[in-house]
Amino acid sequence: MTIPDRLQRRIQVPTPLVDLNRVRRNIGNMADNADTAGVVFRPHFKTHQCREIGRMFRKAGVDRIAVSSLKMAEYFAEDGWADITLAFPVNIRQLNGIAALSRTIRLNLIADHPDSIHAAANTVAHGTGMFIEIDADYGRTGVPWDRFDAIRKLVQQIQETPLAFMGLLTHAGQTYHANSREEIVRIHEQTIDHLHQIRNDLENHGISVPAVSIGDTPGCMTASAFDGVNEIRPGNFVFFDLIMQELGVCTENGPALAVACPVVGMYPDRGEVAVLGGAVHFSKEQIHTPDGPCYGMEIDLSESGFSHLRPSCRLVSLSQEHGIVRMPPDRIRQTRIGDLLTFVPVHSCLTADLYDHYLALDGSIIPRLNSARLRD
Amino acid sequence: MTIPDRLQRRIQVPTPLVDLNRVRRNIGNMADNADTAGVVFRPHFKTHQCREIGRMFRKAGVDRIAVSSLKMAEYFAEDGWADITLAFPVNIRQLNGIAALSRTIRLNLIADHPDSIHAAANTVAHGTGMFIEIDADYGRTGVPWDRFDAIRKLVQQIQETPLAFMGLLTHAGQTYHANSREEIVRIHEQTIDHLHQIRNDLENHGISVPAVSIGDTPGCMTASAFDGVNEIRPGNFVFFDLIMQELGVCTENGPALAVACPVVGMYPDRGEVAVLGGAVHFSKEQIHTPDGPCYGMEIDLSESGFSHLRPSCRLVSLSQEHGIVRMPPDRIRQTRIGDLLTFVPVHSCLTADLYDHYLALDGSIIPRLNSARLRD
Repeated sequence: MTIPDRLQRRIQVPTPLVDLNRVRRNIGNMADNADTAGVVFRPHFKTHQCREIGRMFRKAGVDRIAVSSLKMAEYFAEDGWADITLAFPVNIRQLNGIAALSRTIRLNLIADHPDSIHAAANTVAHGTGMFIEIDADYGRTGVPWDRFDAIRKLVQQIQETPLAFMGLLTHAGQTYHANSREEIVRIHEQTIDHLHQIRNDLENHGISVPAVSIGDTPGCMTASAFDGVNEIRPGNFVFFDLIMQELGVCTENGPALAVACPVVGMYPDRGEVAVLGGAVHFSKEQIHTPDGPCYGMEIDLSESGFSHLRPSCRLVSLSQEHGIVRMPPDRIRQTRIGDLLTFVPVHSCLTADLYDHYLALDGSIIPRLNSARLRD
Repeated sequence: MTIPDRLQRRIQVPTPLVDLNRVRRNIGNMADNADTAGVVFRPHFKTHQCREIGRMFRKAGVDRIAVSSLKMAEYFAEDGWADITLAFPVNIRQLNGIAALSRTIRLNLIADHPDSIHAAANTVAHGTGMFIEIDADYGRTGVPWDRFDAIRKLVQQIQETPLAFMGLLTHAGQTYHANSREEIVRIHEQTIDHLHQIRNDLENHGISVPAVSIGDTPGCMTASAFDGVNEIRPGNFVFFDLIMQELGVCTENGPALAVACPVVGMYPDRGEVAVLGGAVHFSKEQIHTPDGPCYGMEIDLSESGFSHLRPSCRLVSLSQEHGIVRMPPDRIRQTRIGDLLTFVPVHSCLTADLYDHYLALDGSIIPRLNSARLRD
């Protein structure tokens, strides 16, 4: 079965479907992981960017969140979230907006450069939190973890300002490129070890570290040891996607976001059909398979929600609005012009960001932050 | 020099800058190409999706356009465009909207399947145009060019309906993957030859072909022979981008769209800086270089507009909001937290689609179709 009749009529163009039962279960599982590990659960809301899904977290007992832009922070603050970490290196061009927000909620910032800290300290509310971002070998942003002197100097700089030193924060994004669950656990344990060493160095110099915050979905789903970690900030787990599926981080029951696309062309001789559903509906994130790139995998729907993935039906090519789907001959014979095919995206964060709403499986529309990059 | 002072203050977050002088020149050059070739110039507006830029085409004498979605067609029809080809295989789930539009302007559709033609014929206004889409070896959508019987049957099907048979339409998108200008010309000439053969077959069967329409920027910029072609539908040339630059389709003076991004992190030991500017600001389209993937290249600005590309300063990695820029040591030494760096994107169509406006170099904001996928 593909899409229930009650939804069929609603869908004219590529539409992001969300299975809220799966979302609820994904939230519950991660909250349980945090409980078991004895750490604060501060979910990253950049994946869903949706107040209604945010409220599902609140019902699960969450009262602290992370976001990656000022706009997201403002959007969720307006919905009553009063403790937000803006987990992106402070953008000093937005300090006026950041300062205004810092006067209305408990706001934490992150930085890895003295100029950023200096500029923030001069602008934001007294007591605004500041984490030092640590690069625990991911190589994106953050002070390299073994620069103990540099880290100490930044802490001392913070302590001389009205900012509140919050501790150490890192994102071990290299877990997304791991080849096995074992490798994810190894990266996770190394990350924790690096943060331990920094904490020891700071404490040996008489500096106490209020919190240590880590935040990648693969590590938080796979590892069991969280010694010395105070909070986790995973985000992707709310929807999961093909990257998480391929990594073995989620089961087949994990993916909670999929895009329904109308069939617009039939090419049985090539073993392909065309859908309205391209790079502007999925993003161009791909996974590499022995058969070439994959941009999405078909998922079946049952009356109760998302069902099985169909690894034999894949988006193999995307242009701006066109998607090309490879599928077996019998599946093509069952397919008609105007049918809907539903695909789990490769990277749900990027796909969701292309829409201003989701369609729940009961037919209700759930608005999300309109992520079109708006005029300031 | 980077960005003039009058713009510096305006930019807090990644912002798409447009050099309208370059846009005007790019339009003029392509209009001249069409004149020289003796073909109708029907530019594809999916790249800019902007009424103000559309009006620059109108000033250059254009009165017919192509788009790739119903929403774009409606947006431009509201601005007075009265002859529009919806150059995407007819999506029968949107036929009500398509039919409504067909009663207000001269609308042409395209299709390659009898079911699409049948559904359209039952719904749209009498005399609505219908092209048969031909696959001239690109392998995306369209009837394979050598299926003369199938093409004839589709024409006969159209002629038995109130639709007006418009002719043959193709997009030779394989030119984007060419390795040289010579290869582009070869693909272009093959495409024209395929279309010739179809036209001959149809005419031998007593069917006249009102028009033959082709539409890729590389072919339209590079080739000189357009025998038997009646109109061209290029789109990308209005902004160009790194793909076109790498292909040798445009000169260094071609790119007219670039995204200004704030610097948020400095990593001189790695030869890198971090910007606020990630996959949601550029798209993940990449070009492969001997040094790895490239997602954007820095461009200088002078008082008169965009200036030189800096091949040594490239976006080498993107996550959701982070961009990592590799650059030489002396350039890093000149760079400060909060500075703006401006990058020509790899694929301007996908990058522009992430925004709902452009910022012109005189400081004015130019709205474009808000491409957040809205509720129907």
